[in-house]
Amino acid sequence: MRSESDLFAGVYRHGATAAELTDEAFLQALLDVEAALAVACADEGMISREAAEAIVAACVADRFDAAEIGRDATSHATPVISLVARLREEVGEPHARSVHLGATSQDIIDTALMVVAFRALAPLLLDVAAGADAAATLAETHRRTPMVGRTLLQQALPTCFGLRAATWVTGIDAAAGRLHQIRGAELAAQMGGPVGARAPEIATRVAAQLQLADPVLPWQAVRVRPAGLACGLGVLAGVLGKIARDVTLLAQQEVGEVEEGGDPSRGGSSAMAHKHNPVAAVSVLACSKRVPGLVATILACMEQEHERAAGAWQAEWETQVELLGLTGSAAAWCRELLENLRVDPARMRENLDRLAASGAADAEPTAAQFDACDQLIDRALAEHAR
Amino acid sequence: MRSESDLFAGVYRHGATAAELTDEAFLQALLDVEAALAVACADEGMISREAAEAIVAACVADRFDAAEIGRDATSHATPVISLVARLREEVGEPHARSVHLGATSQDIIDTALMVVAFRALAPLLLDVAAGADAAATLAETHRRTPMVGRTLLQQALPTCFGLRAATWVTGIDAAAGRLHQIRGAELAAQMGGPVGARAPEIATRVAAQLQLADPVLPWQAVRVRPAGLACGLGVLAGVLGKIARDVTLLAQQEVGEVEEGGDPSRGGSSAMAHKHNPVAAVSVLACSKRVPGLVATILACMEQEHERAAGAWQAEWETQVELLGLTGSAAAWCRELLENLRVDPARMRENLDRLAASGAADAEPTAAQFDACDQLIDRALAEHAR
Amino acid sequence: MRSESDLFAGVYRHGATAAELTDEAFLQALLDVEAALAVACADEGMISREAAEAIVAACVADRFDAAEIGRDATSHATPVISLVARLREEVGEPHARSVHLGATSQDIIDTALMVVAFRALAPLLLDVAAGADAAATLAETHRRTPMVGRTLLQQALPTCFGLRAATWVTGIDAAAGRLHQIRGAELAAQMGGPVGARAPEIATRVAAQLQLADPVLPWQAVRVRPAGLACGLGVLAGVLGKIARDVTLLAQQEVGEVEEGGDPSRGGSSAMAHKHNPVAAVSVLACSKRVPGLVATILACMEQEHERAAGAWQAEWETQVELLGLTGSAAAWCRELLENLRVDPARMRENLDRLAASGAADAEPTAAQFDACDQLIDRALAEHAR
Amino acid sequence: MRSESDLFAGVYRHGATAAELTDEAFLQALLDVEAALAVACADEGMISREAAEAIVAACVADRFDAAEIGRDATSHATPVISLVARLREEVGEPHARSVHLGATSQDIIDTALMVVAFRALAPLLLDVAAGADAAATLAETHRRTPMVGRTLLQQALPTCFGLRAATWVTGIDAAAGRLHQIRGAELAAQMGGPVGARAPEIATRVAAQLQLADPVLPWQAVRVRPAGLACGLGVLAGVLGKIARDVTLLAQQEVGEVEEGGDPSRGGSSAMAHKHNPVAAVSVLACSKRVPGLVATILACMEQEHERAAGAWQAEWETQVELLGLTGSAAAWCRELLENLRVDPARMRENLDRLAASGAADAEPTAAQFDACDQLIDRALAEHAR
Repeated sequence: MRSESDLFAGVYRHGATAAELTDEAFLQALLDVEAALAVACADEGMISREAAEAIVAACVADRFDAAEIGRDATSHATPVISLVARLREEVGEPHARSVHLGATSQDIIDTALMVVAFRALAPLLLDVAAGADAAATLAETHRRTPMVGRTLLQQALPTCFGLRAATWVTGIDAAAGRLHQIRGAELAAQMGGPVGARAPEIATRVAAQLQLADPVLPWQAVRVRPAGLACGLGVLAGVLGKIARDVTLLAQQEVGEVEEGGDPSRGGSSAMAHKHNPVAAVSVLACSKRVPGLVATILACMEQEHERAAGAWQAEWETQVELLGLTGSAAAWCRELLENLRVDPARMRENLDRLAASGAADAEPTAAQFDACDQLIDRALAEHAR
Repeated sequence: MRSESDLFAGVYRHGATAAELTDEAFLQALLDVEAALAVACADEGMISREAAEAIVAACVADRFDAAEIGRDATSHATPVISLVARLREEVGEPHARSVHLGATSQDIIDTALMVVAFRALAPLLLDVAAGADAAATLAETHRRTPMVGRTLLQQALPTCFGLRAATWVTGIDAAAGRLHQIRGAELAAQMGGPVGARAPEIATRVAAQLQLADPVLPWQAVRVRPAGLACGLGVLAGVLGKIARDVTLLAQQEVGEVEEGGDPSRGGSSAMAHKHNPVAAVSVLACSKRVPGLVATILACMEQEHERAAGAWQAEWETQVELLGLTGSAAAWCRELLENLRVDPARMRENLDRLAASGAADAEPTAAQFDACDQLIDRALAEHAR
Repeated sequence: MRSESDLFAGVYRHGATAAELTDEAFLQALLDVEAALAVACADEGMISREAAEAIVAACVADRFDAAEIGRDATSHATPVISLVARLREEVGEPHARSVHLGATSQDIIDTALMVVAFRALAPLLLDVAAGADAAATLAETHRRTPMVGRTLLQQALPTCFGLRAATWVTGIDAAAGRLHQIRGAELAAQMGGPVGARAPEIATRVAAQLQLADPVLPWQAVRVRPAGLACGLGVLAGVLGKIARDVTLLAQQEVGEVEEGGDPSRGGSSAMAHKHNPVAAVSVLACSKRVPGLVATILACMEQEHERAAGAWQAEWETQVELLGLTGSAAAWCRELLENLRVDPARMRENLDRLAASGAADAEPTAAQFDACDQLIDRALAEHAR
Repeated sequence: MRSESDLFAGVYRHGATAAELTDEAFLQALLDVEAALAVACADEGMISREAAEAIVAACVADRFDAAEIGRDATSHATPVISLVARLREEVGEPHARSVHLGATSQDIIDTALMVVAFRALAPLLLDVAAGADAAATLAETHRRTPMVGRTLLQQALPTCFGLRAATWVTGIDAAAGRLHQIRGAELAAQMGGPVGARAPEIATRVAAQLQLADPVLPWQAVRVRPAGLACGLGVLAGVLGKIARDVTLLAQQEVGEVEEGGDPSRGGSSAMAHKHNPVAAVSVLACSKRVPGLVATILACMEQEHERAAGAWQAEWETQVELLGLTGSAAAWCRELLENLRVDPARMRENLDRLAASGAADAEPTAAQFDACDQLIDRALAEHAR
C-alpha cells in the first residue's frame, strides 16, 4: 500500500511495522483471505480439496502486479474484482470457478485489513513493550532523582524524575493493554457474502485459519471493529506524543535535563553544525499529530448505508493503513528515544535550586515526598511486571 | 455546564442524560469530590472528623452561584480556586483550612469529570439497552420478512429485515459493552496533588467513595482515561448514526419500507403540511455527526506537557461534557426511533418484486437464505441475551 | 445559545464576542430575519405595509421564551416552527398569516446564523486588530532586542525579538484579512423557500436589510458559505494558538524572556502561592485547541442530501456558534496577552550568552543580521499599516 | 511521495493531479527550489554565475534516488540534509559550497510544497472547471425538467432538475474561485534561513522564478498559508462530496432519476452481475470523506513553537500531499461523473406523480415556479460565464 521509495519514509514509516504495511504485504493478505476461503469451502464440502489446494498454491503475492490491479480498481472502486480475475487465471481450469466462492469484495478487503492489522500490531506492540521497559528502567534508576515538577509550563514543586518516567510506563501499558485486547478478541473475519446474509460456518472457518475472531454477525456496515482499532491506535499515539513532548521540553538547552542519545550522527542540522536536534522525539510527534484527524475520519465513516456503504467504507482502507503505519512509526521512534535517553541529574538539581532561590519551595523533596514517589513508582512497576 | 434554555436543546440535549450534564450537576460533582476528599483526609487522620462533617454538610450545589464562579475562572483559568474560596467561607471557622487539603484544581476537576461521566453513563446506557431491546424485537419479529439487500445504495440481493435489525443489535451491544467496561473499571479518581506526587492512599479512599476506579498513578498529564471515554462514546455514536442513516433511507417515500412512529405531532414541516419528517433519525444524526471532531480534539489534546498541560487539559472540559451530552441525546433519540419504528413488509416485497422484474434476482430469499438469516439472527439474539 | 451561567465561561467565553452568541442574541437574530422577510414581502407587494409593521413590532426577543421554544424543537428538529407559531400569536389577527410567508425553517436559521456571525465578527475583529496593534508595538520597540532563535525547541542562532513579534503581526493580519473578506462579501441571506426554488427578489431585499450578501442562488445544501466561515475562524484560531504557545514557552522560568502582565491577581494557583501562571496564554490555547475538530465537523457536514440534509445541516448550528465563541474568546484573551506582555531583554541576552558560551554562535546578531531584521520588520509594519 | 503501485490508487489517486504528487515530482520540486535559490544568489552577487549554472544543471530528479534520500531522513527528521549532500556531490568542485547557500531545510521543503501545490492545482482546477461546465450544461438542458424537491430525504414540493444542477455549478465555482485566489496570491516562497531572519531579497527572487508570491515575512512557524490551502481544498472536496451524495441517492433503483454513464465496463460487481454501481460517485465520496480529518490535522498543527516547530511542521508534509491528491482525485471523478450523467426525466415525472397522488402537491411546477427556476438558473449561468 505504501511505496518504500517515499521521500519522507524516514520520519513516517520507521521501524518494523512498516514492512507489514507495504503494497506487497496488503496484496498477500488479500490472497491469504482468498486461500483461507477456499480451504473453508473445501472443509464445508462446497469445493473439492484439489481446488482448494490449487487456489492456496496460487495465492502468492509476487505472482501478481499490484500496480496493475490498483489501476483496474478504477472500474469497480475496489481492487478485488481485478484480483479475483487474475487469481482465476493463475489457478486455471478446472478450479478457476472455485475461487472466491460466495464471497464479495468487501469480505476480502475487510478480512485482509484485519489480517494486516493483526500482523502489523505484532512488531508495533513489541516496540511499545520495549519502550515501556525502557521507561520502567528509568523509573527504577531515578526513583530518587529530584526534579522540578512543572504545571502550565511553570516550575511548581519538587518531584522525582522516576515518577515522571513511571507515568510514561503506566500510560504506555494502559494503551497497549487495550490494543492487546483488540488484537486478541476484536479483529474478526468477515464473510457475509453479497449482502451480509451468508450462513456463519465459512466465517468461523476463515477466522480460525487467520487467527482472527469469529464474528457474531457479518459487520459489513456496522463498523465497531475498525472503529475500535482506530481508537486503540489513537490512544496509544496520544501517549507516545505526550512522552515525546516532555522530552522536547526537557531537552531545551535552558532546561537541559535530558538529551537524546543513541546514534551520534543523528540530529545534525543543515545550517547549524552545533545543534543537536531531538530527532526521535520530533519524529514521534510528526507521526502522532497526524493520528487524531485520521481517527475522526474512521469514526465519521461509521455512518454506513444499508448492507454496504457508498464511500464511507472505501474511505477507511488507506486511512486504517496510515493509522497503523504512523502509530507503528511513532512506537519505533519512541522506543529508541526511551532506550537511549540521557538524563542529567545535575541539571535537574540546578533547576530545583533556582526554584528554591526564588523562595518558592524547598530545593529538595522532603522524606515524605520521596516516600510517596517510591510508593507510586512501586505501584507502577508492579503493574508493569504483570 | 449547559443551560437548559438552549434554543436547540430539543435536538442536542434530548432525554435523561442531559440532566446529569447541567451546570448544577457539574457543580455538585465538584463539591462531591471536595466532600470525598475531606472524608478521606479524616479517615487518614489528616483532619478531624468534625471538619470532614462540616465540609460534607456545606457541599451542596444550590448554596453556590455557578455563574459567579464561572466568571472568576477568568483569573485562574480554572473555576476551582474560586469554588474553594467560597466553600471555605461556607464551612467557616474553625474548619475552613481543612477544605481541599493537599489537592490541586486538577484533582477536583478531573475527578468531577469522571463522576459526571459515571452518572451520565447510567441513563445513557439505559437508553442504549432499551434501543437494543427494541431492535432485538424487530429482529425476532421480522426474521422472515424478505427485503432487498442494498450495497452502494443499489439493490443487490434478497435478505430479511430481521437480519438488518440484528446487525443493529450487535452494533449497539458491542459499543455499549465497551462503555460498560469503561464505566466499571476505567473511570478513576485523581488525587495527585500539585505535581502528581501525592501518596496513593487519599486517591484510593476518594475513589471508593465515588464508585470510581483506584488509579495506579495520578494521570494528570497521561490522558488514557479521558481519551478512552471519548473513544467509547465516539464508537457508540457511530453505531447510532448508522441506524439513523438506514432509517432515513428506508423512510424515503420512494422506498417506503419503514416510517417513524410514536407521537403523531412529530415531524411536521413549517411549509409543507403533508410531510412526515423522520425527526428522531435526523436528531440522532445531528448529534452523531458532531462527535468525531470532538473525539479528535480529545485525542489531539493527549499531548500534555510535564505535570499539567497549558491548554490541552483545559480544552478537554467542555468537550467531554459535549461528548456525553451528544451521545446521550443520540441514544435517547435512537431508543424512541427503534421503539416506535413502523415496518412495512408489503413495501419491502414490492421493492423485491421490482428487483426480480429486472431479471436480476429472485423475488424472495431461498430456503437456504432464510435459514442463514435465522442462524445469524439466533446468534445475535443469543449474544444480546447474555 | 450559550448560557452565561457556564462554570467554564471564564475560559471559553471571554470578551465581548460572547454577548453576541447568547440564546437571546440568537433568538433576536431569528426574529430580525422574520422582520426583514416581512418588510421584503411588503416591498414586493405580497403583504400589506401594516402587516409588515405589525410583524416588525412583534419581533423582539424578550417577548419570547427561548427555553420553551427550544423544548418544542423536539417535535420538529428545528425551533422555527414553534417560534413562528408564537410569533403569529404575538402579531395577532388580521396579520398573523403574513408571518413567515413563503419561507422555510432553514431560510430563517441559515440567515440568522449569518446575522449572528456578522454581529459576532465585529467585536471579534476589533479584539484581533487591537492584538495585532499591540504586537506591532512590540515589533517596533524590540526591533533591535537580540534573542536566541529556536528551532525544534533548540537554541539555533541570534535573531531579534521584534522580528518574532512581527511574524505574529503578519499572521494575525492575514487571518483577519480573510475574515474581513468573509464578513464583507460571503455571509449571505438565504431565502430559498421549501425547496430552494424561490425567485431571488426576496433574498435580495432581505440581504440588503441585514447587511448580508445577496446570494447567486439559495445555498440550502451547498454549504460553501458556512464552511468558508468555519475555515476562516479556524485559521485565525491557529495563529492565536501559535502566539500563545510561544508565550508559554518564553515564560518558562528557565527561559524567562517574557511574562504575562496586566491584572496582578491573575495567575494564582490553588496549591502554590508562588506561581505566576500564564492564564491568558493558557486560555487562548484552551480555546484554540477545540477549534480544528469543530472545523472538521463543518467540512464533513458539507455532504448534504438533495434540497435539505437529514442531520448534516442540523449538526452545523451549535458547532458554528462554538466556533465563533471559542475564536472570539481566544481573540479577547490574546489581545490582553499582547497588550500586557512584559519583555525581559536582559534574560534574552543571558540566554544568548549561554549559546555563545557553548561556542555555537555569536552572542549577538551581526550588523547584517540587525539590518535584515529591520528590513523584515519594516515590511511587516508597512503591511500592517495598510 | 506516492507510489503509483498503490493497490487503491484507482480510487484515491485518479486523474491528472496524481502525476504532480509522486515522489519524483516532489523530489523535482525540491531541486527546483535549490536551483532557484542558486540563481537568486547569483543575481545578488553572492555566488558566481558559473556556480549557479552548474547547480541548475545538476537539479534533475532522475539523478537522485528518492528511496535512499528518504531513508536518510531518519537521521535528521528531514530529507533535505541528505539531498543537499548528494546535490553537492553532483555539482562537484569548485561549486559544491555554493549549493543551498544561507538556506535551511525548511526553506526548501516549504517552498517545494508550495511549488507542488501550484503545479497540482493546475490539472485539479481544470478538472473542476470541466465539471462545472458539465453541470452548467445540465442546468441549461434541464431548466424545465420537473422533479421532486426533497428535504430530510422526504419528498417535498416540485422543482426543476436544472436548478439542482445549477446549485452544483455555483458550489463548484465558489470553491474553485477561492482556490484560484490561493494559487494566484497566497502560495509563497519561503527563504528565511536558519531562524527566519534572512533579508527578503532572496525570497523575492526565488518567488519570481517559481511563480509564487513574495511573502511579507518568512512564515516558518506562522502557518496561515498552508492552512489556507488546506481549507480551500477542504471546501472544494465538500462540494464535490455533496454532488456525489446527490447522485448516489438519485441513482437508487427506487428513485432512478439519474445513472452514471461513460465507460460501460465500469460499475460491475464481483458477486452480482446485474448491478450497475455508481463507481464515480462512490470514488468521489471515498476521497472527500478523508479530507476533513486531514484539514483538522493541518489546523491543529498551526500551533508551532518559536522559529521552527518540533513535530507540528513535520506532520504537515504528507498531509498536504494527501489533501491535494484526494481532492484532485475527487475532482477528476466528479468531472467524469458530471460529463457522463444520464438523466431520466420520465422517472422524475413518475416520482412527481406519486407525490401528487398522495394529495400532497401538484404534480408539476406552476408557471411561477418554472419562472423562478429560470431566473435562478440564469443567475447561476451568468455568474459561471464570468
